[in-house]
Amino acid sequence: MNAAIVTVGSELLRGDGLDTNSQWLSRRLEGLGYAVRLHLSCLDDEADIAAMLEVAASHAEVVLVTGGLGPTQDDRTRAAVARWLGVEVRLDEDELAHIEALFARFGRAMSPSNRRQAELPLGASALRNEVGTAPAFQAERAGTRVFVLPGVPREVYWLWDRHLRPALLAGGAQRPRAERSFRTVGIGESRLAEALEPVEARAGIEVRYAAEEREGTVRVTLLHDEQREVHAAWLAAQELIGRHIAARGSDRLAESVVAELCAAGRTLTTSESCTGGRVASRLVEVPGASVVFERGLVTYSNEAKSDLLGIDPALIAEHGAVSEEVARAMALGARRAGRSDLGLGITGIAGPGGGTPDKPVGTVHLAVAWSDDPACVVHLHARYPGTRTLVQTRASAGGLKLVLDALQRSQEESP
Amino acid sequence: MNAAIVTVGSELLRGDGLDTNSQWLSRRLEGLGYAVRLHLSCLDDEADIAAMLEVAASHAEVVLVTGGLGPTQDDRTRAAVARWLGVEVRLDEDELAHIEALFARFGRAMSPSNRRQAELPLGASALRNEVGTAPAFQAERAGTRVFVLPGVPREVYWLWDRHLRPALLAGGAQRPRAERSFRTVGIGESRLAEALEPVEARAGIEVRYAAEEREGTVRVTLLHDEQREVHAAWLAAQELIGRHIAARGSDRLAESVVAELCAAGRTLTTSESCTGGRVASRLVEVPGASVVFERGLVTYSNEAKSDLLGIDPALIAEHGAVSEEVARAMALGARRAGRSDLGLGITGIAGPGGGTPDKPVGTVHLAVAWSDDPACVVHLHARYPGTRTLVQTRASAGGLKLVLDALQRSQEESP
Repeated sequence: MNAAIVTVGSELLRGDGLDTNSQWLSRRLEGLGYAVRLHLSCLDDEADIAAMLEVAASHAEVVLVTGGLGPTQDDRTRAAVARWLGVEVRLDEDELAHIEALFARFGRAMSPSNRRQAELPLGASALRNEVGTAPAFQAERAGTRVFVLPGVPREVYWLWDRHLRPALLAGGAQRPRAERSFRTVGIGESRLAEALEPVEARAGIEVRYAAEEREGTVRVTLLHDEQREVHAAWLAAQELIGRHIAARGSDRLAESVVAELCAAGRTLTTSESCTGGRVASRLVEVPGASVVFERGLVTYSNEAKSDLLGIDPALIAEHGAVSEEVARAMALGARRAGRSDLGLGITGIAGPGGGTPDKPVGTVHLAVAWSDDPACVVHLHARYPGTRTLVQTRASAGGLKLVLDALQRSQEESP
Repeated sequence: MNAAIVTVGSELLRGDGLDTNSQWLSRRLEGLGYAVRLHLSCLDDEADIAAMLEVAASHAEVVLVTGGLGPTQDDRTRAAVARWLGVEVRLDEDELAHIEALFARFGRAMSPSNRRQAELPLGASALRNEVGTAPAFQAERAGTRVFVLPGVPREVYWLWDRHLRPALLAGGAQRPRAERSFRTVGIGESRLAEALEPVEARAGIEVRYAAEEREGTVRVTLLHDEQREVHAAWLAAQELIGRHIAARGSDRLAESVVAELCAAGRTLTTSESCTGGRVASRLVEVPGASVVFERGLVTYSNEAKSDLLGIDPALIAEHGAVSEEVARAMALGARRAGRSDLGLGITGIAGPGGGTPDKPVGTVHLAVAWSDDPACVVHLHARYPGTRTLVQTRASAGGLKLVLDALQRSQEESP
């Protein structure tokens, strides 16, 4: 069954706000087996909203609308839906009583304009909203079901779980397709697609790629009508990607690192130059990270590298701060300074300045040590493309991945 | 003049990708004085794309299309635009030569499918793309101008600057409205709007709010037809917001901090517990930050606070790690450990666990020291709402803002 999403809000059209509701709702609709055909955004304008409903209804049997349900005259969605349905709006006494009770509970004064929020198109059914004052509602015209929600993401999520999901559960595909995913790091979408050609060639398999720019990872999702087929394809895909696997399920990269360190009973200290604390902050985003990560060092200058990590200034002078030698020394130094099991070192040139023909912008050396023995260090010499921020994101993803690699190596090599 | 944006891509409709092109292009169109009326997203389907063009053209004189220009059979935008124009596609020999040259320059083999990228609707003019292999083009039907771009954001930005902006410059409003903006921190949108009511009441003034969740800031933009009026309102607004001002222009918060430190000739060392390196990494995102920021410490555990910052364990035992006393000691300790002019300390409970009735989740103590004298420390006791990640973002914004405050205090108090 087809679905469409209409988002209403002048801030979206001006580019002041980013429409995240459409993405969030699309994932949920897809999860129930609906095919989302259109996303439509328009101004808080009655005629435009009604026109978008018309377009949506001509492509889909289920239409979700968000935004424009506030208390002010700018909020036109109620009137637009009524116009499209060909009915009047009327005050819903039940909803009014509910809104009055909400205001009383929050100890806030209710303005006359808030009464408008209790108005619904005639024939529409209210969807009780317990987390905000804008009531949601649903209506139907000529076989198209319309669900109308406020624009606040938190309220959208709540209303989806409470009302929309149960109402829509039966209408999706007979059975949602089986899917499994994993995450990769250090390999772009096009090379991934090339490597996974044999998997894409399997009968009935669909492969989706989603670059996660903020994470520096790519999520690969495999779909098939049969659970068994998708599992086999998922194993085969990982076989083909090998060392680029960052997580075998839906865990984010930093979550994998914390989980693997916890499972191995190892601790980590980070020392970061060009990433400036990004690896540390990604680890600390994971609840409970303190068990395995208790300190990190941001050693942006050469002096800081010597002071905090005990790196011989002569080593830096000889090889340069961005070098395999210094990355290895940082990893060993971080491990010692933090009295931890593993130490990570990252040094590189994030740009825009600082590049040389030998060491262009994007050059990053990464190392992880798991013992005082200089032989027990893994090293990666990378060249990340992109802007300063992208290089930093990709290098921090590379660093987290290298911790996973080192952990595996240290366990393989222990007797 | 009205504009509309059509984005094509199945990944957008499935919720795998977030449409950031529409937001980016809308801001630019608004800047040229266009009113953006619609954002429409559809699948890589020829009929759907043509239908969206029809809807867009019925609301706008300028239509921008992104996506669906790749080399594979899935990429249907060229054919859909041709269908809507009522023409055939034909191979453009100039564009083919250009694509062949691009492949040669990058040293990559050109597949036969890449030839398809040189096909354009008859009568369309190519917009030469120097940063990717998908050619952009423009066409016109019955007074509607259509610009068709690939979906890769980097290429969209480049093509906008090179081709679209010059072509569209003349078509916007006679004169774009004057605007000025500033950024705030530590105050939500609704409280901001209340505080700025006197400014909103000024004749002809429009006030826009854009919450920047990733930054923990809110951007406030004032608009008016007259430059002089917008400037006066901008000054009045800052007077009303006072201590919440994070930047008086379009600088991001970390950029302000680096610029102010540079201007004052001062250096900073950070020590972070609950924010785990976020302040450091936001500073290092600013090119040239190394002049004022050369090291940071992530002291997640009590032991790390004592080891790296020289904090007396008895102080932590007496007041708890999340306390004004420990934040102040962290600030002083960071300043000493980094031999810098200023030291920042942040300690708090980001959640989801760890909260107590006295110190609920979201409690954060922040301090900045600008001398060894314990009197030369500013302290902030905050309670940030939201999830773990939101608390961390807000606390790091709070920490950066406190550095600005301390810098001002230190300069006011110096003889």
